[in-house]
Amino acid sequence: MPSEVKSASTEQLNLLAGEMREEIFRTVSSCGGHLSSNLGIVELTIALHRVFDFPKDKIVFDVGHQCYPHKLLSGRAKLFHTLRKEGGLSGFPKRAESPYDCYETGHAGTAVSAALGIAKARDLKGEDFSVIALVGDGSFQNGLIFEALNSVSLLNSPILIILNDNGMSISPTVGGTQEILDGLKHSAENVRLFEKFGLEYIGIADGNDFSSLLPALERAKERIKEKTVLLHVVTKKGRGYPFAENAPAETHGLSPKPVPREEYSTALGEELTALAEKDSRIVAITAAMTDSLGLRPFFRAFPERSFDVGICEEHASVLAAALAAEGMRPYYAIYSTFLQRAFDEVIHDVCGQNLPVTFCIDRAGIVGADGETHQGIFDLSYLSLIPNLTIAVPANIAELRAMLRMSADFGAPLAIRYPKAGTQGMCKPFAMGEWELLRSTTSDIVMLAAGERCLDLAQHLLKRARAHGMDFTLVNARFVKPLDEKFLASLEQKQVVTLEDNVLAGGFGDAVARALRGTDCNVHSFGFGDVFIPHGEPASLAVKYGLDPEKIYALIEELYARG
Amino acid sequence: MPSEVKSASTEQLNLLAGEMREEIFRTVSSCGGHLSSNLGIVELTIALHRVFDFPKDKIVFDVGHQCYPHKLLSGRAKLFHTLRKEGGLSGFPKRAESPYDCYETGHAGTAVSAALGIAKARDLKGEDFSVIALVGDGSFQNGLIFEALNSVSLLNSPILIILNDNGMSISPTVGGTQEILDGLKHSAENVRLFEKFGLEYIGIADGNDFSSLLPALERAKERIKEKTVLLHVVTKKGRGYPFAENAPAETHGLSPKPVPREEYSTALGEELTALAEKDSRIVAITAAMTDSLGLRPFFRAFPERSFDVGICEEHASVLAAALAAEGMRPYYAIYSTFLQRAFDEVIHDVCGQNLPVTFCIDRAGIVGADGETHQGIFDLSYLSLIPNLTIAVPANIAELRAMLRMSADFGAPLAIRYPKAGTQGMCKPFAMGEWELLRSTTSDIVMLAAGERCLDLAQHLLKRARAHGMDFTLVNARFVKPLDEKFLASLEQKQVVTLEDNVLAGGFGDAVARALRGTDCNVHSFGFGDVFIPHGEPASLAVKYGLDPEKIYALIEELYARG
Repeated sequence: MPSEVKSASTEQLNLLAGEMREEIFRTVSSCGGHLSSNLGIVELTIALHRVFDFPKDKIVFDVGHQCYPHKLLSGRAKLFHTLRKEGGLSGFPKRAESPYDCYETGHAGTAVSAALGIAKARDLKGEDFSVIALVGDGSFQNGLIFEALNSVSLLNSPILIILNDNGMSISPTVGGTQEILDGLKHSAENVRLFEKFGLEYIGIADGNDFSSLLPALERAKERIKEKTVLLHVVTKKGRGYPFAENAPAETHGLSPKPVPREEYSTALGEELTALAEKDSRIVAITAAMTDSLGLRPFFRAFPERSFDVGICEEHASVLAAALAAEGMRPYYAIYSTFLQRAFDEVIHDVCGQNLPVTFCIDRAGIVGADGETHQGIFDLSYLSLIPNLTIAVPANIAELRAMLRMSADFGAPLAIRYPKAGTQGMCKPFAMGEWELLRSTTSDIVMLAAGERCLDLAQHLLKRARAHGMDFTLVNARFVKPLDEKFLASLEQKQVVTLEDNVLAGGFGDAVARALRGTDCNVHSFGFGDVFIPHGEPASLAVKYGLDPEKIYALIEELYARG
Repeated sequence: MPSEVKSASTEQLNLLAGEMREEIFRTVSSCGGHLSSNLGIVELTIALHRVFDFPKDKIVFDVGHQCYPHKLLSGRAKLFHTLRKEGGLSGFPKRAESPYDCYETGHAGTAVSAALGIAKARDLKGEDFSVIALVGDGSFQNGLIFEALNSVSLLNSPILIILNDNGMSISPTVGGTQEILDGLKHSAENVRLFEKFGLEYIGIADGNDFSSLLPALERAKERIKEKTVLLHVVTKKGRGYPFAENAPAETHGLSPKPVPREEYSTALGEELTALAEKDSRIVAITAAMTDSLGLRPFFRAFPERSFDVGICEEHASVLAAALAAEGMRPYYAIYSTFLQRAFDEVIHDVCGQNLPVTFCIDRAGIVGADGETHQGIFDLSYLSLIPNLTIAVPANIAELRAMLRMSADFGAPLAIRYPKAGTQGMCKPFAMGEWELLRSTTSDIVMLAAGERCLDLAQHLLKRARAHGMDFTLVNARFVKPLDEKFLASLEQKQVVTLEDNVLAGGFGDAVARALRGTDCNVHSFGFGDVFIPHGEPASLAVKYGLDPEKIYALIEELYARG
């Protein structure tokens, strides 16, 4: 297809754009994925492939969720129906997938830094090609982008930065940076701001119109021979599909089919709103994900106590810490994978000062189709090492609600970690730090399961074991830190089996094993191994990467035979 | 002293400033600490205490190393001689130390976010006081500051941001942001940039002249009743002491007395420079700490392959990843505690893409006098959980050199983690991942020690044990990930003792224990407990917080008696 793009007439390019839109729409409808951002960027991608010579020239997609048209144009059209399926095309750029993908992304704000690094390597090696960073306006709020802009003149290796401005993160883009970007449309003054960073701003192009895009890109290609250029492209998110144009937040990411289970995020929004009615200290914070985290009802009910600070995960953590330092009770809701961005602030600002911030950590465990960069499989480990932090892992949605009700008066840093979807379930009253004995037996085997996925697995194993005349004790280990030391102290000569949907290194199993060292108990841990887990179907990935029911059942049989 | 400041004449204030400078100089000369930044800010701190009413009004010091004058003026002058000593005053703001310290800092770039959070809490609670963020120009490059500026108009809770502009980070401040700040001195254009962020820029004051400072602060105090104000204060780092004024980088932080041991950083600079002469792929990256990391010789020899990107730890990681993606061999040198800031980028950019970046992690373990925010005691844990990463912990400086020589052709992410100072030592040839058997015995006891501090301790214990007719096997566990599986597999019925200067949660001991589960070996781990370690003397803190020779020796005696 690249050659086709090079020689086509504008009319043919428009036809191609239409075909690509249909293909994207069709595929996302069946495979799930990011819709509106990809629909918006079809013409821009075609124009880039016409003007530049990929893969000799290199492009870094910030976040990377908008790379579908690029995949279609770089030899992957025939595989496009496998998008986001296990073993199929990734929904993000992957180096192993194609030489057209030179750098992998997934989290916001990395593209300018990466493009500068690629360009610097080019110059050091004396090579000659163009490097492009394609960045949405939402990412432009992220601190990393400014750290990279600060380096433009220092590094002095020209790149083309394309600002893909559709006025949206997942939610509409907010804050002072967006005002500056908006200001570019009306005033030369903001242009000079970028010039201070060593950039040449070469104006605005209509990102859905080839007659505007092609000359702008040609000009940019010329100018980056001398210095770094910022090309401002205005696109319409969801372009071509009225329902997507009108509801870009709702169509940012689509699930392949209706999710039958209920969402933890709904409970978060409901419970937090109810709590805040009685407790004026409660405030809610998000980094540009109000809806997907379930915070919309809270934001509607308490606009003055609701803070969407844009894609600024670190700032949001410090803001939460400071609000807590002054007596408020901040709830910072965030996806597990994105909290990695605020790791230092969780340590330095929240836990170092032992402040009552509650982290509501959604999308924990395997998230599935978004792949390596989005799995929430490190959090139990990177949080367990932090002093002063309590880590709760609800067994079901009812337990999340109970934990939230206990949180406001807890008075110390608290992380509640849960998956996207699960069951309402039930929950008896419990104290902070207390595990739940779901089945008490005299068996030598004691299974400790953390979180709904692992408890489901444990219940399934228990049923199967009992059908075969075996039995074991089962515990809902709803606190991963601190462990229920009282319960652990009661164990004698037990075979303790731990289950967690987290990497084994530094996770729940390691903590249990450390607590039981020097006792006569043996610990057997199941969780994920030391690899990045690619995209696929969550249940299937869980089995493949460490939570294999057959292996755990085989261990139970073996232990039972011994005991 | 606060009341004195309120009523004094300008002449008296100047006298006070002189006395405070002498006190700071005297104390830092004996206790160590940050000199030039505190000398530079004496008048500004006095003026703040005169114009504002602390602790009702609140001030957040970015980084916090410049808070000595504030401590002197807030009831801590009599304790000032205990600065940075165990049990004495901290060198950073501490809430537990004084109500005048409202928020704790240590890492760069948090002050504006924190001040906004405090101001927002004030407004939500209907209280009335002023909130000040005091930020050096070095921190202004940090992405967090821009994330916070992006929120100024969103949050709409006015604060006073004081830009303390001395043109220096620890090294001179570099990059586009500094050009913008410099531009403020000459042009109204840059002012409007800040206005876009919802700030009112009220000009420049001479930060070492009360006649300029006092009216500027009075004006700011008035204006922040309406909106967030940026006051630009130009100070001279090291002010009042010509040797400090002329050598602000060298006098940024002083050690209390000459360090008798040698520095790992010197070896880094020498070795990397030598390697780079033969290998043109090698580049070095730092986030504003060229000298303290030992990189100066490299920067002198290879300026075009040397990148000081300012206090931008995250950007530096992504830049390193991208350089590696294009075939270069980047060495990113950084303090252990500051690498926490780039945790997500280590996962997402470097290890997720399995790129050959070498992290040279200095100041690992207990750093001592800088306290909680600077201890390098989490790195073995937060790095061990990351797939694709190899973690090396040299036993001495010679081993660091050997590891560096092996690193360029290693071809995958590598973290080498070492303390500030140690001994040259010796080192026989070894392969990546291979431990060193320092003493082989038939004893049941096998001690695995990671890093020079722990090996010193182990050798001391071995000597003592042998003097008492006991003995044990001793291993230099110079790779924490992967473990030397071959060696571990050779162990039968052993009592394995692990030593690490890292928190136990998720660290070396946990990894060894996981590897030995299901064997007939028992693991006993020593390292730091689940607390933040305050400032003090490193050797003393190590004993107190988990590496107590008496306790380990007692275990050896007990195990020996059993075995």
